[in-house]
Amino acid sequence: MDFDLLRFAAGYPYNLDFDYGALSQLQHFSINNLGDPFIESNYGVHSRQFEVGVLDWFARLWEIERDEYWGYITNCGTEGNLHGILMGREVFPDGILYASRESHYSVFKAARMYRMECVKVDCLTSGEIDCSDLKKQLLANKDKPAILNVNIGTTVKGAVDDLDLVIKTLEENGFPQDRFYIHCDGALFGLMMPFVKRAPKVSFKKPIGSVSVSGHKFVGCPMPCGVQLTRMSHIKVLSSNVEYLASRDATIMGSRNGHAPIFLWYTLNKKGYKGFQKEVQKCLRNAHYLKDKLRDAGISAMLNELSSTVVFERPHDEEFVRRWQLACQGNIAHVVVMPNVTIEKLDGFLEELAEKRKLWYKGSGGDGVAPSPPCVAVDIGSENCDCGLHK
Amino acid sequence: MDFDLLRFAAGYPYNLDFDYGALSQLQHFSINNLGDPFIESNYGVHSRQFEVGVLDWFARLWEIERDEYWGYITNCGTEGNLHGILMGREVFPDGILYASRESHYSVFKAARMYRMECVKVDCLTSGEIDCSDLKKQLLANKDKPAILNVNIGTTVKGAVDDLDLVIKTLEENGFPQDRFYIHCDGALFGLMMPFVKRAPKVSFKKPIGSVSVSGHKFVGCPMPCGVQLTRMSHIKVLSSNVEYLASRDATIMGSRNGHAPIFLWYTLNKKGYKGFQKEVQKCLRNAHYLKDKLRDAGISAMLNELSSTVVFERPHDEEFVRRWQLACQGNIAHVVVMPNVTIEKLDGFLEELAEKRKLWYKGSGGDGVAPSPPCVAVDIGSENCDCGLHK
Repeated sequence: MDFDLLRFAAGYPYNLDFDYGALSQLQHFSINNLGDPFIESNYGVHSRQFEVGVLDWFARLWEIERDEYWGYITNCGTEGNLHGILMGREVFPDGILYASRESHYSVFKAARMYRMECVKVDCLTSGEIDCSDLKKQLLANKDKPAILNVNIGTTVKGAVDDLDLVIKTLEENGFPQDRFYIHCDGALFGLMMPFVKRAPKVSFKKPIGSVSVSGHKFVGCPMPCGVQLTRMSHIKVLSSNVEYLASRDATIMGSRNGHAPIFLWYTLNKKGYKGFQKEVQKCLRNAHYLKDKLRDAGISAMLNELSSTVVFERPHDEEFVRRWQLACQGNIAHVVVMPNVTIEKLDGFLEELAEKRKLWYKGSGGDGVAPSPPCVAVDIGSENCDCGLHK
Repeated sequence: MDFDLLRFAAGYPYNLDFDYGALSQLQHFSINNLGDPFIESNYGVHSRQFEVGVLDWFARLWEIERDEYWGYITNCGTEGNLHGILMGREVFPDGILYASRESHYSVFKAARMYRMECVKVDCLTSGEIDCSDLKKQLLANKDKPAILNVNIGTTVKGAVDDLDLVIKTLEENGFPQDRFYIHCDGALFGLMMPFVKRAPKVSFKKPIGSVSVSGHKFVGCPMPCGVQLTRMSHIKVLSSNVEYLASRDATIMGSRNGHAPIFLWYTLNKKGYKGFQKEVQKCLRNAHYLKDKLRDAGISAMLNELSSTVVFERPHDEEFVRRWQLACQGNIAHVVVMPNVTIEKLDGFLEELAEKRKLWYKGSGGDGVAPSPPCVAVDIGSENCDCGLHK
């Protein structure tokens, strides 16, 4: 298997940048961060200093003071969503959860786990939340507080919900700041967005309650992990019922992998803000290259402005899909352009796809028997569709 | 720090047995088991074969057919409890959760997360659930199904709830098998118990719904992990609402560490049933040695019959507690005797404790000013207490 292809799938890297020589020695130790990173534990082999260092880094990135945030390094993006949405429910026990249809499935799983009323909001073709539908849904449920999941990069299309417009929609429709809670699911793009020029800011200076991001995608940690940050004032709500919980531990998992914080800390400090900025710019440039080349070749494709996820027609052949580790949904597939995906790699992919399409769609449009490229207008808009009808 | 001491704390090992030479190479790969281990994913670098192999091993241990179980490798014992209790709630949406006061705090956290009614049941001095109190609580709530957390080794005292007596109590008090769900929290002892002669069996031949166990304690996996097994028939209840969940993923976390299954698989197969049996017997033998020596030295101590957790008076000095990585609660401390804790290590501990006690309790009982050893009769029974009053 060509491991370099893996980032094609969903942003999971085979990371070439780590100095494993030194770090791999860590595997000799059972490092376990038990419970709350800010509360001392009796277990001696932990990496809480690194964990707090990583959290401080993200606190600076998302603009919240050190003494005003609480957070921890999670096992994955899903745990961040589970925590953020639980936080919202604890702040507003009778709140309704609003999430766009293209939100990650863990959001709807959380609603079921937590026995929350959940409203699915429509999306624009881009995959962004449709704020006119959000308005309609909010007005239909004016009597209950709103808990919102805002996507900073949806799973399939990499769409970034317009946080400012979501806040405006809330405030203009009878939901002042003390009647809503916003969790930002930043799985992949939560870390990339801050380095994109002109991108709307994810910031705790805005009335948001929590942000989560994956650590094993763009950052490239070799084990699944994530970062979850929220406001100290919210966590107090969760931790208040100590007698009931029999613990001051406000995390979801009790034991947490202690290696992940060290890998994260190492990468964040080695690359630095400047290093990430450079990598993000490269990803966006290469994603544009891929999208343009696809369109030039007459292949349906879309790229959201703030994203490095290129969405295109699902390849006809499952063998091709497997070989290139493409994630598919219905008639579309996507490539998440991560730092290790080079122009050369993309050229190889484009060339092979063009060759294969000639075989798959040979004689298409003629006798009506040979298969034609799928119409994906409903998925990515007719302006991006190159099917027989829309080209 | 003397890493050999770590198992003193809570069963977290510094593991000497792994052949890290080969396995540490794995760290070069981002191995991620996405979602349900039995459903294929589009991400190529996974270790599902190992995961299923480990699950099969535990299925044999806990006596359930391969086509009748469902399970996965979790991030930790807490995730197993969260999953097992969620399973119970999905089977009985209006069920009441019963758990003994000495259950792990994640059980009570689950009740809060899942918005379940929760009844705390009293314990015997040993730490086992008090089935006469359970009966009383059941009779007071006869109208609702019962969801039980049964401890196979409590956190502090290593007490094993009497599963057979719990089932009998349920059945004799108006709860036939179709009105209860039992989750067995086997965190530490779930894996040891099957190798203890005369121990009551944890088995799916009994009417239990799920069992969870930690993988980073007795097995010695160098990252937090656990195993969760349940019945296929139950998981179908959880997975039924696919449209709502937008996924067939019945795990709690979406992304899961793919290294852990490989470590687990390797250890299980290297040691084998016989190897585990030998280690368990050694642990129990050494735990008895420690308890006897403590009592001989006039120190309050208790050891449950099926356990390798020795409970004793809390050392007077916090420095001593830290140095030996002891977990404390109120007036008691405990040592979890794991395979790496040798007689020599225990002798060193006993010697140092005896020396220190001479200093701490010098002149005690005389002028009433010097500190005395704490009375722990309420914690471990007056027969095990060696304080001024009970000795």
